[in-house]
Amino acid sequence: MDLELIRGLAVPATTKIVLLSADGLGGFPHPETGRSELETARIPHLDALARRAACGLLRHVGPGITPGSGPGHLGLFGYDPLRYQVGRGVLEALGIDFELRPGDIAARGNFCTVDAEGRITDRRAGRIPTSRCVELVDRLRKIRLPDVELHVEPVKEHRFVLVLRGQGLAGRVTETDPQATGTPPVPARALAPEAERTATLVNRFVEEARPLLADATPANMLLLRGFDQRPALPRVPEVFGLRAAAIAAYPMYRGLARLVGMDVLKTGATFAEEVQTLAAHWDAYDFFFLHYKDTDQAGEDGDFPGKVAALERLDVELPGIEARRPDVLVVTGDHASPAILKGHSWHPVPVLLVAPYAAPDSVERFTERACGVGSLGTLPAHHLMPLVMANAGRLTKFGA
Amino acid sequence: MDLELIRGLAVPATTKIVLLSADGLGGFPHPETGRSELETARIPHLDALARRAACGLLRHVGPGITPGSGPGHLGLFGYDPLRYQVGRGVLEALGIDFELRPGDIAARGNFCTVDAEGRITDRRAGRIPTSRCVELVDRLRKIRLPDVELHVEPVKEHRFVLVLRGQGLAGRVTETDPQATGTPPVPARALAPEAERTATLVNRFVEEARPLLADATPANMLLLRGFDQRPALPRVPEVFGLRAAAIAAYPMYRGLARLVGMDVLKTGATFAEEVQTLAAHWDAYDFFFLHYKDTDQAGEDGDFPGKVAALERLDVELPGIEARRPDVLVVTGDHASPAILKGHSWHPVPVLLVAPYAAPDSVERFTERACGVGSLGTLPAHHLMPLVMANAGRLTKFGA
Repeated sequence: MDLELIRGLAVPATTKIVLLSADGLGGFPHPETGRSELETARIPHLDALARRAACGLLRHVGPGITPGSGPGHLGLFGYDPLRYQVGRGVLEALGIDFELRPGDIAARGNFCTVDAEGRITDRRAGRIPTSRCVELVDRLRKIRLPDVELHVEPVKEHRFVLVLRGQGLAGRVTETDPQATGTPPVPARALAPEAERTATLVNRFVEEARPLLADATPANMLLLRGFDQRPALPRVPEVFGLRAAAIAAYPMYRGLARLVGMDVLKTGATFAEEVQTLAAHWDAYDFFFLHYKDTDQAGEDGDFPGKVAALERLDVELPGIEARRPDVLVVTGDHASPAILKGHSWHPVPVLLVAPYAAPDSVERFTERACGVGSLGTLPAHHLMPLVMANAGRLTKFGA
Repeated sequence: MDLELIRGLAVPATTKIVLLSADGLGGFPHPETGRSELETARIPHLDALARRAACGLLRHVGPGITPGSGPGHLGLFGYDPLRYQVGRGVLEALGIDFELRPGDIAARGNFCTVDAEGRITDRRAGRIPTSRCVELVDRLRKIRLPDVELHVEPVKEHRFVLVLRGQGLAGRVTETDPQATGTPPVPARALAPEAERTATLVNRFVEEARPLLADATPANMLLLRGFDQRPALPRVPEVFGLRAAAIAAYPMYRGLARLVGMDVLKTGATFAEEVQTLAAHWDAYDFFFLHYKDTDQAGEDGDFPGKVAALERLDVELPGIEARRPDVLVVTGDHASPAILKGHSWHPVPVLLVAPYAAPDSVERFTERACGVGSLGTLPAHHLMPLVMANAGRLTKFGA
């Protein structure tokens, strides 16, 4: 199913939609208890919602495919993540709230360690502290290249972002990271004629950086990868006819929402503040994307009790969202992050949808297992948005 | 989802995978008992595995589509059988262990009966015994055509294989079988300019065969169909990064495995010997495709108790496979062959997947009905391989 189809069927309405994405929501049973994080947590509000909801499982990319947060959220926003891909450099820039302009080329940078012969000995420079990254980025900011504006921004530990801004740049450039140690960084190559100049500029940047970093062991060299331009994605207001707002404490999720044309609302660092932001802007928008980060963080840290606690903290805030009386309320996530796997996983993610014409099914708890037998079945994440639109009375009939 | 996607995400690992295909596994309830072959058989090991597994049903081609063994197995190997098609002539050649070379054109041949006017009266020549087929094939081997090497090989009863080997041949040639009696065989026609020469050669072969068979009634003529070349399929070692081995007593399944780049291991005629072969080569491979034929044979013969017995004989061998401690163990089939239908059918086929991060669901028996409510749902067979790869820790994240 295609966004063009939805665009053709979307009709105006006054209904309100809330899409709550609990990052890395899905989990996996703990070997000692046989219960997942959701099955362990006390989440009375989510369970009560599940009883009033149509439930199911979302698969964001495909069976067995572990989604990154970018494709995971694009799926939730209604975009087939295999069709609409966003480069790593772009996601990294979004992640530090860097406002990429159309035409900008973004790359993800790593400080690395090279030996006296220039061969890489550590691709992550021993994960230097972020404060050191900031100092070294400052050195790189001295580099000047002809007819192009350079932006170098620290991210975290050994990671930074490089942005080239100017006319006639192109992202089809190979990475300088050989993805191996014992070998020197490789020059960037153009994958298309229009990227020749960009590749030349990237290689000059690397050569100018070399002497600036020479005394900075272990971070005495750099690697660049994921060159890409901000993609021109269809915009939520035009495809779905929604005045859409994003409320997210973390920059990457604000950036993703901006990529699809949502307004990004200023909010605080906690989820309680996000819920306050929702209340404050309730009248101005039709669609709210709310992002909750703590679940993923605990999952990635392998902190099972931490993830359980994060779910319980989320549950407490649900009444504040329900108090707005959205016409359609969806709770789900962008991918699973089981604590026992210490990272994202391929497991499908629970989803609940509460709306007047979404009949409650037999599901009584908001867990992986319970939602697995829900009436929505297991569906591709990008099929959720049309369902949400229909339940919001915002899609007309297809065909006569 | 595409094999290119999988190729891009596959990462090395030391895990071991066993894919056991019980040919024609799925059945249908016997009208007298209301129980299918799987529901009737005593299969304690398979049932115990189902309790530890994520279960579901596989659909190999599409709803209502009955798969042949070729598409059925390509699906299990991760190839969308609608996208990767293998001609009947090629399958027939694989089925007799004929080593097709790239460029060879293979066709399936039938001996048939024609009347004095050359009109077909029996498209299968009364299913002559195989020994007679061997004699008649010997006659056909006398035929010589310019600039092309001919191979004629007996198969079974009225069936044989014709292979044309030489430069500049093409498979886009229509069959000589009118698929009706009362009408003569039709000349082969080229469907593309590059197949003109092949069509001419085929028609000359038919004309040379006519006098050689004239006195061989009922097998006094032949029909050719399913012209095709060995397809250039993506190879399992390159797409999935797996050292893959096939263990199959029957030639067609070895041939299919060879088509996708698996090593074919020498084994015996029984499944017990196949399991010994598995043990003997355990260290040398990451992925083992094991094929069990008896279930299909009994199903096609309409032998309900025979199929039940075949399932019970399979069950006995399961401990020998489990003793290898594969990281991922899958048991399924390439299609259903219900005894009451005496042939392949379109019914989806039970599948079980045992792996550390595949959570057991509520399924307690390895049957069509029980697996129908399993956590894997009903999925296209070619979606199984990505799931297997994920569970083997052999796929990295998609997107950041």
